[in-house]
Amino acid sequence: MDLNQLHKNISVLIIGNELLDGRVVDTNSNWIGFELRRQGRSISRIISCIDSIEHIKSSLGLLLNDSDVVIVSGGLGPTTDDLTREAVASFFNVSLKQDTLSLNHVEEYFAKRNRAMSETNMRQTMLPAGAAYIANPIGSAPGFYFKKDFHGQEKLLFALPGVPAELKQMCLDTVFPLIEKSLGKEKNFHELGFRVFGMAESEIGARIEALNLSNDIEICYRSAFPEIEVLFRHPEKSILDDTLLVASKAIGNEFIISFNPSTSLPEVLKDLCCSKNITVSVAESCTGGMLGELLTTVPGSSSFFKGGVLSYSNEIKEKILHVPSELLKSYGAVSSEVAKAMAEGVLQITGSNIGVSITGIAGPDGGSEEKPVGTVFLGIADSTGAETKKISFPSSRDRIRRYSSFVAMDLIRRKITQIYD
Amino acid sequence: MDLNQLHKNISVLIIGNELLDGRVVDTNSNWIGFELRRQGRSISRIISCIDSIEHIKSSLGLLLNDSDVVIVSGGLGPTTDDLTREAVASFFNVSLKQDTLSLNHVEEYFAKRNRAMSETNMRQTMLPAGAAYIANPIGSAPGFYFKKDFHGQEKLLFALPGVPAELKQMCLDTVFPLIEKSLGKEKNFHELGFRVFGMAESEIGARIEALNLSNDIEICYRSAFPEIEVLFRHPEKSILDDTLLVASKAIGNEFIISFNPSTSLPEVLKDLCCSKNITVSVAESCTGGMLGELLTTVPGSSSFFKGGVLSYSNEIKEKILHVPSELLKSYGAVSSEVAKAMAEGVLQITGSNIGVSITGIAGPDGGSEEKPVGTVFLGIADSTGAETKKISFPSSRDRIRRYSSFVAMDLIRRKITQIYD
Repeated sequence: MDLNQLHKNISVLIIGNELLDGRVVDTNSNWIGFELRRQGRSISRIISCIDSIEHIKSSLGLLLNDSDVVIVSGGLGPTTDDLTREAVASFFNVSLKQDTLSLNHVEEYFAKRNRAMSETNMRQTMLPAGAAYIANPIGSAPGFYFKKDFHGQEKLLFALPGVPAELKQMCLDTVFPLIEKSLGKEKNFHELGFRVFGMAESEIGARIEALNLSNDIEICYRSAFPEIEVLFRHPEKSILDDTLLVASKAIGNEFIISFNPSTSLPEVLKDLCCSKNITVSVAESCTGGMLGELLTTVPGSSSFFKGGVLSYSNEIKEKILHVPSELLKSYGAVSSEVAKAMAEGVLQITGSNIGVSITGIAGPDGGSEEKPVGTVFLGIADSTGAETKKISFPSSRDRIRRYSSFVAMDLIRRKITQIYD
Repeated sequence: MDLNQLHKNISVLIIGNELLDGRVVDTNSNWIGFELRRQGRSISRIISCIDSIEHIKSSLGLLLNDSDVVIVSGGLGPTTDDLTREAVASFFNVSLKQDTLSLNHVEEYFAKRNRAMSETNMRQTMLPAGAAYIANPIGSAPGFYFKKDFHGQEKLLFALPGVPAELKQMCLDTVFPLIEKSLGKEKNFHELGFRVFGMAESEIGARIEALNLSNDIEICYRSAFPEIEVLFRHPEKSILDDTLLVASKAIGNEFIISFNPSTSLPEVLKDLCCSKNITVSVAESCTGGMLGELLTTVPGSSSFFKGGVLSYSNEIKEKILHVPSELLKSYGAVSSEVAKAMAEGVLQITGSNIGVSITGIAGPDGGSEEKPVGTVFLGIADSTGAETKKISFPSSRDRIRRYSSFVAMDLIRRKITQIYD
């Protein structure tokens, strides 16, 4: 397969000083690359450049030279360092004109929020002459697109705000459909896969490599910490079905949380709990609310999640969760005994079907030789009794907390589906 | 100040298909940008391109046009899709020659690990004629650098492996010292600023624009939803001090949460509460734990955060927080009355100094005409009584929850610092 041919059509321009001086990691281009790849397309080049009209224009020049489509991210805000509108207009030698749809959008955006629209927001309603408005269903900045002749070839340019949530929605709503309309449907290929939790990416890779799958099956791993998406692509559906079967056997069903690669544990749990009419409550110490927050990212989570207790202090562990003070004294708050008592406590006071608990040392301080940073105890309780699990995950505070929250969700999944370690 | 001048000297080229199809997020350029910035330098442009000699060469051409230094990451491995050596040689029209230092390095690397050096590794010992070896203390791939004339100007090109740990070490050991030797020590500039919550970026921009600050002060806004960083840069500290004074007056101290632009509300609260010996607890409904999670992102948060209750269901609001069922029946769970009772409840059962509550409609379903999605009530209680606040923030589920959590933290900040709306 000729990669240049495959990758030739689309490129991305990321604008913003904060992306060049190390303050912000650009994730927009990665997301665009991944989504386009799912559609059988790829991007050949990404340029990130500072908020400077000259730099934006010279970057546009290079990208338009060998791309049919350029997607621009950033520089559409209201302030004077937002220069994408000016740079694109200057590049194509057109003026900026007030755009009615953009004006309506910005006015409505502020009216809905009972906030005054400031004079600087008027900058956002000016588009390069000939450009068409792209609706932004989330934020105030209108996007725009442009069909333009460049050295005798028709080019398509999209300008979108750099805020990831806005860019993503606008790509899905408008940009990707327009690209498909303009470039045609890409040769169809099918995609199947699954989502894994609890196995290292290297181990997943080794097990799949050992299968010696045919070379024409494209395999793709994508880490969404702490879960991993595994994708297989091929033009023939039947070949993919067979591949999925042997690959999932090699990984083991207990580690496959979903055969929809983009379905994460919170959604898996919601579906499981709803179908079996099970309610869940949580008792969190070191995660401080992260487990509850994750469970409630899914709309409709109130159908199975009752709530719980953030027992960050020992006082709350005792007073609200009724953890016996002897346990705290004898074993310490970070112990299997206290994790068990927390899970039992939250089960009892909330009356849910399953209670789950987390207590651990998220660091960076507070570790000891016996219980180093990354030591976490989890408990899970239901009417039949309670169990605990200890994990050792030396890492950053954020990753320890996130990993622990996912282990807690996985304990619930395994309990409901009766998969045991 | 001419940004182009300031940023002009250094650019980065990132090579690898996996960075363009969404499999891997490039973090090397971000790290280089951050490190260079600490040295008073900046990069003006980053290009990411696929493993193709033509794409690498055209990218090099653009970057060398307006940079004195280009740092290349990736494409130095042993396999046939590692093309940086070939592309650089072809770009400068020189041949590849075996390099003795590189050969020694690769041989030693494998000898040390008792592994056989394969024929493909010989590719790694070939450097463009005239290039000098850069030691790689971690991996097998030698790096190289090149002083070359390009359109009559001397340019410096560094080629490093894309493995982050290797690239970083080689930058610190060799690349940064050589850049300093070549470009000289950078003129120092100072940076001051603040972090804002509760004012739209457009309004901040308008107020600062109205100050008509001198053109040589660089102003930079960075949105870290829902907070905004405002930065000012200038070589003279005294000018920056004056700027900060007038700018902060224009914004108003009640909206400035910190004069350290990177200090977010969780850290602000930790410092405030610790210095005044105040403890906090939370009662969360629609945020499901996000407020607690945010408060505990900061290490040492246990010194002020006691914990709280995730009262996602009405049952828990009644049973654990003692919200009177009449209130729930008469006003509904999403109401000022229930927010107040939740805050009072959590204050009472935890014995903290301040209790704060959130109840609202995060959507996408559950809204009504009277209480549309994005309607959130917050309560704050202490020994002197309780108050509530209503917000209307129609947005995505995630953003509604995040914004509400920050409003709750800001209520605590304003309560402690006695700033009232």
